[in-house]
Amino acid sequence: MKFDKDTRILIVGLGLLGGSYARALTKKGFTVKAVTRSQSSIDYAIGEGMIAGGTTEPDPDVIGWADLIVFALYPHVFVEWIEEYGKHIKPGAVITDVTGVKQCIVYKIQDMLPDDVEFIAAHPMAGREVYGVQNSDDSIFREANYIVTPTDKNTPDAIRMCKDLGHTLGFAHVAELSPEAHDDMIAYLSQLTHCIAVSLMTCSDVPKLKEYTGDSFRDLTRIARINEDMWSELFLLNKKSLISMIDEFSGELYRMRTYIADENVEKLKEMMRMSTERRAAFDKTNMQEN
Amino acid sequence: MKFDKDTRILIVGLGLLGGSYARALTKKGFTVKAVTRSQSSIDYAIGEGMIAGGTTEPDPDVIGWADLIVFALYPHVFVEWIEEYGKHIKPGAVITDVTGVKQCIVYKIQDMLPDDVEFIAAHPMAGREVYGVQNSDDSIFREANYIVTPTDKNTPDAIRMCKDLGHTLGFAHVAELSPEAHDDMIAYLSQLTHCIAVSLMTCSDVPKLKEYTGDSFRDLTRIARINEDMWSELFLLNKKSLISMIDEFSGELYRMRTYIADENVEKLKEMMRMSTERRAAFDKTNMQEN
Repeated sequence: MKFDKDTRILIVGLGLLGGSYARALTKKGFTVKAVTRSQSSIDYAIGEGMIAGGTTEPDPDVIGWADLIVFALYPHVFVEWIEEYGKHIKPGAVITDVTGVKQCIVYKIQDMLPDDVEFIAAHPMAGREVYGVQNSDDSIFREANYIVTPTDKNTPDAIRMCKDLGHTLGFAHVAELSPEAHDDMIAYLSQLTHCIAVSLMTCSDVPKLKEYTGDSFRDLTRIARINEDMWSELFLLNKKSLISMIDEFSGELYRMRTYIADENVEKLKEMMRMSTERRAAFDKTNMQEN
Repeated sequence: MKFDKDTRILIVGLGLLGGSYARALTKKGFTVKAVTRSQSSIDYAIGEGMIAGGTTEPDPDVIGWADLIVFALYPHVFVEWIEEYGKHIKPGAVITDVTGVKQCIVYKIQDMLPDDVEFIAAHPMAGREVYGVQNSDDSIFREANYIVTPTDKNTPDAIRMCKDLGHTLGFAHVAELSPEAHDDMIAYLSQLTHCIAVSLMTCSDVPKLKEYTGDSFRDLTRIARINEDMWSELFLLNKKSLISMIDEFSGELYRMRTYIADENVEKLKEMMRMSTERRAAFDKTNMQEN
């Protein structure tokens, strides 16, 4: 199917991410509607001109209207929704999502859908430490990555459409990974970092913290303000990869601790040189992109 | 002794921090000179109008000229310098430093100095991931903390002078801690965070990293570009506190790992709520200050 301004888009779940999708797509000239739980979110989005309309109930007419549906829901809510309302999706429609874990969700949803509805999964790697449609902001996509995670069941057409969506939303980079590779990657680059930030914040209680901190502690704990419902769900859904990454990291930190305890300056410097080199290369490629 | 525009200031070690001190103090109308190893640093600083003059050799006349000397050297170089040239410091002069560890240096230097020269130690918690006087920039002090670490040997006058220096440099907050409390604090808020960043960067090698990262990984590894000579020295000089903090943090991360492995959602959320609360309080006090 084509992806152009005639593609009718429905966002299910109008929170920070769903709202940011709506803003970006409406700006680009698409007709966007929304289904979300709270009437105040619908009212806000209509008032802001972010959507053409919306309902708090999954109205079969609205669901059947859409050519492309974006699910911005908690993983378990997404599955329940498809179970209950999937039958209203129009034959030939494509659905996608924003879920932060893939293996546990992609195959399940694909199996639940009728043959004439295709689910092509994606993970927009953007967010903020605040929530709700009122904080939605499509500029969060500007320097961010968007990862499409197709399976054998996906068609080249749907994969292309999903990538087009990523570009249309304004992501800096659109990549493709298998659900399995995605989950390992995300365990390292996102879930582990959140575990570290939380543990760093809770492992010691310093009164008047602010008077003694430098930038490093501020940087490392920014994401310690965390939505506990969402992240605990995501962690458990990617339990195996995440635990294995925590163990990799803990082993590496222990290696560093050993070098410090043994005053093994040469090994300590070797680790630092490697981290400097890798991070410098990373900065360089970042700069090339920007 | 008084601290005003007639106070003649000598910076020993004109790198990023020493250079930033020179810039800030010259702007405020002080007469600043420098002693540093490389002639090109002196030339640069004179060319930029950052200093009134400088030498590459520790000239007794220049040393004896100063009312206040700021040492911006590696810890072991600082000790060697005092050993060799401390005798040229003018009676009644005050000296201070920028060293990132305190117990191992403060008592030693105080013991080495003649009775009529007072060393009041300080730690300006500001820096950048680049080095050298060419990158010096006094705006790095603007949102940063400055910690004075007096001992029983220090006079109220010198403590006040050192705090005045922190305010004059433009630090957002000037605090006071014992050398012992400082080192514990720094093990947690600065050294541990650097160990984490390095280990996070070296524990896994992901090709095309940039295509898959979100802000969290970028934030947590910014300080993984690290000066290995300086930081390995600082780590070993604060070995006991640092190892104890690494162990605290590792234990906390392991607790989180256990909750994930056991699918103990309630305990997992409890940790996240605590981290969110602490970080939110920290953000709030930050905002009040700014």
